[in-house]
Amino acid sequence: MYTYTRLKDFAYQVFVKMGCPAHQAETASKALVSADLRGVDSHGVARLSGYVRLWEGKRIKPKPDIRIIHETPSTAVVDGDSGLGLVVGPIAMKIAMKKAKEVGTGWVSVKNSNHFGIAGYHSMLALSEDMIGISMTNASPLVAPTWSKERMLGTNPIAVAIPAGEEPPFVADFATTTAANGKLEILQRKQEDTPLGWIQDKEGQPSTNAFEVKNGGALLPLGSDREHGSHKGYCLGSIVDIFSAVLSGASYGPWAPPFVSFLPVADDMPGEGLGHFFGAMRIDAFQPKEHFKSHMDNWIKRFRSATTVDGQESVLVPGDPERIIEQERIKTGFELLKPVENDLMALAKKFEIEF
Amino acid sequence: MYTYTRLKDFAYQVFVKMGCPAHQAETASKALVSADLRGVDSHGVARLSGYVRLWEGKRIKPKPDIRIIHETPSTAVVDGDSGLGLVVGPIAMKIAMKKAKEVGTGWVSVKNSNHFGIAGYHSMLALSEDMIGISMTNASPLVAPTWSKERMLGTNPIAVAIPAGEEPPFVADFATTTAANGKLEILQRKQEDTPLGWIQDKEGQPSTNAFEVKNGGALLPLGSDREHGSHKGYCLGSIVDIFSAVLSGASYGPWAPPFVSFLPVADDMPGEGLGHFFGAMRIDAFQPKEHFKSHMDNWIKRFRSATTVDGQESVLVPGDPERIIEQERIKTGFELLKPVENDLMALAKKFEIEF
Repeated sequence: MYTYTRLKDFAYQVFVKMGCPAHQAETASKALVSADLRGVDSHGVARLSGYVRLWEGKRIKPKPDIRIIHETPSTAVVDGDSGLGLVVGPIAMKIAMKKAKEVGTGWVSVKNSNHFGIAGYHSMLALSEDMIGISMTNASPLVAPTWSKERMLGTNPIAVAIPAGEEPPFVADFATTTAANGKLEILQRKQEDTPLGWIQDKEGQPSTNAFEVKNGGALLPLGSDREHGSHKGYCLGSIVDIFSAVLSGASYGPWAPPFVSFLPVADDMPGEGLGHFFGAMRIDAFQPKEHFKSHMDNWIKRFRSATTVDGQESVLVPGDPERIIEQERIKTGFELLKPVENDLMALAKKFEIEF
Repeated sequence: MYTYTRLKDFAYQVFVKMGCPAHQAETASKALVSADLRGVDSHGVARLSGYVRLWEGKRIKPKPDIRIIHETPSTAVVDGDSGLGLVVGPIAMKIAMKKAKEVGTGWVSVKNSNHFGIAGYHSMLALSEDMIGISMTNASPLVAPTWSKERMLGTNPIAVAIPAGEEPPFVADFATTTAANGKLEILQRKQEDTPLGWIQDKEGQPSTNAFEVKNGGALLPLGSDREHGSHKGYCLGSIVDIFSAVLSGASYGPWAPPFVSFLPVADDMPGEGLGHFFGAMRIDAFQPKEHFKSHMDNWIKRFRSATTVDGQESVLVPGDPERIIEQERIKTGFELLKPVENDLMALAKKFEIEF
């Protein structure tokens, strides 16, 4: 069993060995391991060796000059200077929050970044300031739009965190595909099939073979097929791509620089690095805080007490599953899969640190 | 065959007979008939008698005092004073655009409104000012969250319009359910079954009977079931509900005042009327306009030329299907279904106007 602190400290040391300044290594390790804590195991320490791979490939700069290159009272474009997305993300989110303090809302589009961990972590930074937090990012092109054989988009997640009063906050954090790539990776490790509707093969035909995506196949947009609204998932993924990358000057669509090792980096990228988009809206820019929070409590209680279909205990509110896992894992710690442990031991050896 | 102008003039006269001031009747008829023009037949003149029914029920005021009740430099809350959503919507969107001119972006949450037609119409108002337009609304509670038997949300659409250069704009406009209620109404009229995954019966079991929703059943969130991501569609519908109604002080969730006649109005509403949410982001608050537009052209061309699966002619860009229909209908006019024609004739008789 591992504790949160042990994993975070290990990630911290790895980032320091990569050359990150101490405060940035602290920011990055917190953002990274929040994924393990919240049960999004695919996005936590399991990806640490991936960041090291990008650093070795000179795609991540350990001492970036992260800066605002254009702004208005409510907006900014941030150049991440090839820094860790795990560092660029929180900095950009805080710029959005600062603008929200000043003019009600703040909106920041980021270029020249890379994988930023779980989207929910960044949006949740706004909660303590009584703001709604929004975050999204484009990602490795693994998704085929409706009717496309080609992979044109990432799983492009959207996260929205909304403060409540006595109730825990509303936190939605989801890929705009039927299933996130992390879910697929788990099935690949277990050598299990996917449900129909998650992926297509390289000819664009439905498949249940979890390895097809490594073989020219693609993940499907939320909705699975045209009849069930895949064009809507395609719209959502596109909006995330445009807000994150076209608005910022990052590389977009099929040219998004991949995090996964089995995809090549495009040699004709139309922009710089990966893109993110962050938003912060001050609650009291709309309603008195306490008034809003008591209505959010009412909203949450009403949804959680909705009559369930037979066999289900209760209707969940977005954020419930992750919070329940987090509470358990803080108490009891958590286990890592053997391949992830091996990965971390290899990193420990490479950097001559303890694990 | 009917022309756009003929239907718009007819709607205009109906709104004037309801007591709307001329300029508001003009705004409303333009917003309404834009749905027919763009092929969203369920939301156009087919709904005119619905607005009249709400007016007769004293739920629509023909001469509302639509006003800002709270604001910051980038936000506003608008009280629609029970005006037609078709009038309140464009007014609120223009407030968002004015704020975007001043501080880069504008965000407006609206209470005390009702059905506002197609979401896409409002978001597209931003295009001519070189802004990205966003609009959403809550709606008649007809949708069951994942694992719920109860109907807790509307089909809560999201529309995002993004300017391009030589290419037509990117316009996404979609319900956050597998299928919009309008699609269901068409199957009901034709007495046809739905595909599996669109609806559940009153026990929460999958059904293909298009009439179940009138019999205690529900529409399903985008994703259809848990295995295919219905919790993500539920997240999206919830975000639209909270931004539109909790942020503004409108009635939310299962208490949203219904437009459909087969649902009762809740007697314990926690807010006033229906809610909308509008956003406007000035392109040049992020990038030089021409730079952004040329990259949008590149984005659009690349997606439209993606290799298709066998049997499909081309990958579409959001907004393509509606624009193609609009171009056809402007040229050749369009037909109305017999029940819609009958409805309009009844309205003509009621108000003593010509049809």
